Amino acid sequence: MTSAPLDPSRPTLGIIAGGGAVPVTVADAAAEAGRPVVVFAIRGEASPSVESYPHHWIRWGEIGRLFDLMVREKVGDLVICGSVTRPDFTSIRVDLGAVLSLPKILSLMVGGDDTVLRGVVRFFEDRGYTVVGAHEVAPLLVADVGQLGQVRPTAAQSLDVAKGFEAARVLGTLDIGQAVVALNGRVVGVEGVEGTDELIARIADLRARGRLKWSGREGVLVKAAKPQQDLRVDMPTIGPRTVQAVAAAGLAGLAVETGRVMIVDRAETIAAADKAKLFLVSERLDPASVAPVAEDVP
Amino acid sequence: MTSAPLDPSRPTLGIIAGGGAVPVTVADAAAEAGRPVVVFAIRGEASPSVESYPHHWIRWGEIGRLFDLMVREKVGDLVICGSVTRPDFTSIRVDLGAVLSLPKILSLMVGGDDTVLRGVVRFFEDRGYTVVGAHEVAPLLVADVGQLGQVRPTAAQSLDVAKGFEAARVLGTLDIGQAVVALNGRVVGVEGVEGTDELIARIADLRARGRLKWSGREGVLVKAAKPQQDLRVDMPTIGPRTVQAVAAAGLAGLAVETGRVMIVDRAETIAAADKAKLFLVSERLDPASVAPVAEDVP
Repeated sequence: MTSAPLDPSRPTLGIIAGGGAVPVTVADAAAEAGRPVVVFAIRGEASPSVESYPHHWIRWGEIGRLFDLMVREKVGDLVICGSVTRPDFTSIRVDLGAVLSLPKILSLMVGGDDTVLRGVVRFFEDRGYTVVGAHEVAPLLVADVGQLGQVRPTAAQSLDVAKGFEAARVLGTLDIGQAVVALNGRVVGVEGVEGTDELIARIADLRARGRLKWSGREGVLVKAAKPQQDLRVDMPTIGPRTVQAVAAAGLAGLAVETGRVMIVDRAETIAAADKAKLFLVSERLDPASVAPVAEDVP
Repeated sequence: MTSAPLDPSRPTLGIIAGGGAVPVTVADAAAEAGRPVVVFAIRGEASPSVESYPHHWIRWGEIGRLFDLMVREKVGDLVICGSVTRPDFTSIRVDLGAVLSLPKILSLMVGGDDTVLRGVVRFFEDRGYTVVGAHEVAPLLVADVGQLGQVRPTAAQSLDVAKGFEAARVLGTLDIGQAVVALNGRVVGVEGVEGTDELIARIADLRARGRLKWSGREGVLVKAAKPQQDLRVDMPTIGPRTVQAVAAAGLAGLAVETGRVMIVDRAETIAAADKAKLFLVSERLDPASVAPVAEDVP
């Protein structure tokens, strides 16, 4: 747990907050550890519940104002968390700080998602801030090893879990997706850029059309981080909505990589799994056991 | 090219024909090599164009009649090819041969697609027939190495091709899909059980919704066989429809594994690619260069 500030002259943990429950969970954990917190709540994204902590509402584009506030609030470490809808860049009014950063910001926007996120981290770090992961402040955001809910996978379902982790690990090495669905000993769906929600919807659709058949609940959604993923700002996530989608698709459970997949609304997520009679398990993957992928293509 | 029969007392090449142009292409190639041919055309599936060769129309379920006809026609080698819609098993009237084979047929239907196909091959081989691949009789059904149409991929597009083959090869090793879409140096979509058509449609949809952005034509559909795939009865396939879908999705081209992906309606497929200004290339993959995938999941 990163609860002590790196720089004692700037003891405050800044939380740049998008939507959902994660920013408050992080603030709660920091406050519990006795650490001063200030939330920079992105307007139109962050939940009003962040107002229970010292906070400032900021708009997309108010980068100059953000840096002024961070200095005034003695922020040293920074957590960037919560969901964001992709902003409509044409409607953003930028302030002087943004104009001065424009070349940097434009170069961030050129790359893929990973590149953008790595760029965001560097953008703050170049200005003297230390970006830490939400899960480093609030370790309960990630899964422990083992069975999280009340339902235990069957032996056949555990084989699907193993099959899914094997595939997810290799796909991560290739920088493809974070999630797969394994069913009856076979990987039947793989996440690309469309994301986990659409992968689950696809499996449900294939079942509805009779292209995938199984009786009762079978199959598992497996989610793991890519080896190279910057977990400080880009962590694979599941939550109650994921559980509901998995249940609606007729799958039997979820499996996530220990320590590297965020469980948003942990209690609610586990309760939802129990209620839907889904298993929810976590396994620690050993990065060293991932076979290297041949780089040369003949 | 397998043009000489293995058993001189049974010189005829039998072609069990589903839909599309492949059965006639196989019959043409055999006839050209001077080999007697008889087509067993599946009613409701095979094209009437097979009637230009000696033929019998058979119904799903007429297994006894099929074996009687094969003996009478002196069939030794057998090609099973063409597309089939999955039959409605409840409406099939089975003959005595099918009833006698019922336990075998039921056991075939239990496994996944691969298991069914391996079972079909064994079913005929156990009865003294040699199942050969359509491409062994008609080598023009598979791609040569190199550029097939008139369009040459750019350097960036060639990198996408390499990235796509790398991923397709690993996915094949894991027995997942046969196709991926690579775009701007990144694999953005992976085929699971939904098939290549739906993978392409997904990419088109992601672009229409602004989730994937590119200008002009970029990106490639890469298709390869799984290492363990039985190419005699189960070959990855592209054709004019694939080319049209790739063009409609705004991708720049197609790349297929040399010798192990079937090009249905070759001339028409290449013409369609040229017309849509898509590249169509083929690369020989060295199965030995596929890194072994770690089997143990911690």
